[in-house]
Amino acid sequence: MATLKNAFYAQSGGVTSVINASACGVIETARKQRRQIGKVYAGRNGIIGALTEDLIDTGKESARSIAALRHTPGGAFGSCRYKLKGIDENRAQYERLIEVFAAHDIGYFFYNGGGDSQDTAHKVSTLGKALGYPIACIGIPKTVDNDLPGTDCCPGFGSVAKYVATSIREAAFDVASMAKTSTKVFVMEVMGRHAGWIAAAGGLAAEKRGDAPQAILFPEIAFDEDRFLAKVDYAVSRYGYCAVVVSEGARYGDGRFLAETGSRDAFGHAQLGGVAPVVAAMVKSRLGMKYHWAVADYLQRAARHIASKTDVEQAYAVGKAAVELALQGRTAVMPSIVRTSQSPYRWKIGVTNLARVANVERHIPRHYISADGFGITRRCRDYLAPLIVGEAPPPFKHGLPQYVTLNNTPVRKKLKQPFDI
Amino acid sequence: MATLKNAFYAQSGGVTSVINASACGVIETARKQRRQIGKVYAGRNGIIGALTEDLIDTGKESARSIAALRHTPGGAFGSCRYKLKGIDENRAQYERLIEVFAAHDIGYFFYNGGGDSQDTAHKVSTLGKALGYPIACIGIPKTVDNDLPGTDCCPGFGSVAKYVATSIREAAFDVASMAKTSTKVFVMEVMGRHAGWIAAAGGLAAEKRGDAPQAILFPEIAFDEDRFLAKVDYAVSRYGYCAVVVSEGARYGDGRFLAETGSRDAFGHAQLGGVAPVVAAMVKSRLGMKYHWAVADYLQRAARHIASKTDVEQAYAVGKAAVELALQGRTAVMPSIVRTSQSPYRWKIGVTNLARVANVERHIPRHYISADGFGITRRCRDYLAPLIVGEAPPPFKHGLPQYVTLNNTPVRKKLKQPFDI
Repeated sequence: MATLKNAFYAQSGGVTSVINASACGVIETARKQRRQIGKVYAGRNGIIGALTEDLIDTGKESARSIAALRHTPGGAFGSCRYKLKGIDENRAQYERLIEVFAAHDIGYFFYNGGGDSQDTAHKVSTLGKALGYPIACIGIPKTVDNDLPGTDCCPGFGSVAKYVATSIREAAFDVASMAKTSTKVFVMEVMGRHAGWIAAAGGLAAEKRGDAPQAILFPEIAFDEDRFLAKVDYAVSRYGYCAVVVSEGARYGDGRFLAETGSRDAFGHAQLGGVAPVVAAMVKSRLGMKYHWAVADYLQRAARHIASKTDVEQAYAVGKAAVELALQGRTAVMPSIVRTSQSPYRWKIGVTNLARVANVERHIPRHYISADGFGITRRCRDYLAPLIVGEAPPPFKHGLPQYVTLNNTPVRKKLKQPFDI
Repeated sequence: MATLKNAFYAQSGGVTSVINASACGVIETARKQRRQIGKVYAGRNGIIGALTEDLIDTGKESARSIAALRHTPGGAFGSCRYKLKGIDENRAQYERLIEVFAAHDIGYFFYNGGGDSQDTAHKVSTLGKALGYPIACIGIPKTVDNDLPGTDCCPGFGSVAKYVATSIREAAFDVASMAKTSTKVFVMEVMGRHAGWIAAAGGLAAEKRGDAPQAILFPEIAFDEDRFLAKVDYAVSRYGYCAVVVSEGARYGDGRFLAETGSRDAFGHAQLGGVAPVVAAMVKSRLGMKYHWAVADYLQRAARHIASKTDVEQAYAVGKAAVELALQGRTAVMPSIVRTSQSPYRWKIGVTNLARVANVERHIPRHYISADGFGITRRCRDYLAPLIVGEAPPPFKHGLPQYVTLNNTPVRKKLKQPFDI
């Protein structure tokens, strides 16, 4: 009887509040297939763990710990920002991956990440065949930016969307209370360097005319200071206050980010990041209104306590489906989310070829943004709304969410050569 | 039969996620006492509503809307930052208040706010007697800063504390995942200009040595850049990353705020606020580590979705008790929270004289802060821990919390003279 092939799972790029739910889906599904899959290894700090043969034996974790991944934010095995170069530029990296996989009898490679990761999975699949070491390479979609093609949405996005819409609604109740004598304008900065999906999600907080946010600044719409300030001024005169959601990627017509023109720190360094204070300063300078601003940063993508149940379920489902696809002999594919019905919202898992996904960014279509460029349209709302539905709170103890930290037991190395990254 | 005296309720200063729960306690309790209290009016935008005779008739709101105040953040009637001057400086303001109260047969004045508001309630009580218009003046404690004396804690604080501890725990799971190749230091700025209670609450996230946050910067401890950077450097070398909670009021030994030395905006204006980017820049400049930073700002005090159940119950209870005290003939007092047992945690409502409360700030005692100045002690933890216990989520619909906006029907004016504020 041939030895069972093992599986390798790695997390890549910026983590989310539900990437561990995908890991949970992979591991729990693989554990039910003990006649077809041997061990499930994970890369410590993502693909770097594979290159340096720093593998984690997930089999050393209890069923309870693995189940707790479903409600734990961050990347349980560590992630990394490390993009493999093209095969022609650095063939040695890919050969090293195959070498490590071969040394540990790895027949299944699950790579949980965004566009770059799908590209890597695709290349490993191709090279494995060429080198006579065929390996099932399955991408698992993950990105808060929601910018992957070939899937209706990306696991990780729905939860950020829910956080952003909830937060701007709550902050608007606050600023509305204070506007008579104090803060009139509140600016909240959200992620999305290239695509405005997260900023758009703020628009879900507005259910009727005049509701916050009264202005959204998208990366896709060239920023016009005069028009923006007129929008703010109108909202304040009409509704007493103005709540603004600004994407970190908001930019001028010439491509410069608003944040670039902004802050200098105590040491004179340009650009600490932070477009919110730049926008707030415009409001103060030109309109003379008192403002407050917030930068949610990691809080938004780590906020597992306010995760979308739909998102958690989809994140788990793509992990589970990845294992099933591998066992069906598929490679160079990614399980995707397919919307089968809008109302009531229904979805199923589909399959997308990685060749279609790699290195393509999906921006918000123009017809999802209102004519004036400061809001979302009905079609955008219809698209976004189901993604934030449902609550899936983690267990709480002593008033705080209980998250799991795994043991992350290392696998004994088999190769003699280290690999410098 | 004498006409029933009416009640007047106003919200003051920065709002919280549970100040409306106190309003709910006042109104629901008063509604049960129809033989002793006539109408319950509220001030539109706080005490300004009283001065300008801009009253709201809460009787026009349904029982259901009033009940929904219990889970709605912000100030439902509007608040204001407007401090009445001393009686000697501006006796006209106080006389105007009495005039408005007399015109509307108001015999009960409930003022929901911080130290300034308690001071005002105290003065109105004194002046009412002097002018032959005795009125029951009851302060209702509210402040996220937790800096009122005469009460074990302040309604509003427990929920901010829960938000901050939850958020830094979640963000730490994120940064720990990324630290190998990307962000190593995460800085989260929280409120508390003069007192570090909110920053201290971040410490609740750490349950064992090495847990985040590895450093807290308090207003009460003079900031020493070298010692701080050594702390960060140690945490990164030992645990791979460092999560920092910094109070907006963090300052140097000479009293300068860290934020003062910081950012310049696009227009060259000094200090947008934002101590987090200043601290992050130090980490980058001196340690060369990649950082991320967040400024929670209003999000923290509006985050009703993650409110502490204990806090919500206490906020309601002080509102209810305020009415009961008024009906007992008390004046110039404030219902307080009294801790009757530490383990298990038990509390009851006490009574504090406003003379004791007005214009006194309660800082964190030094023995609540660890010897090195970067953490909280066991005693501090014992004090804080019960305040964040329990979840009291609002109802959700379509994935978002459902908050109430009242009709806020105006009361017909009876005075001929307007009043300029």
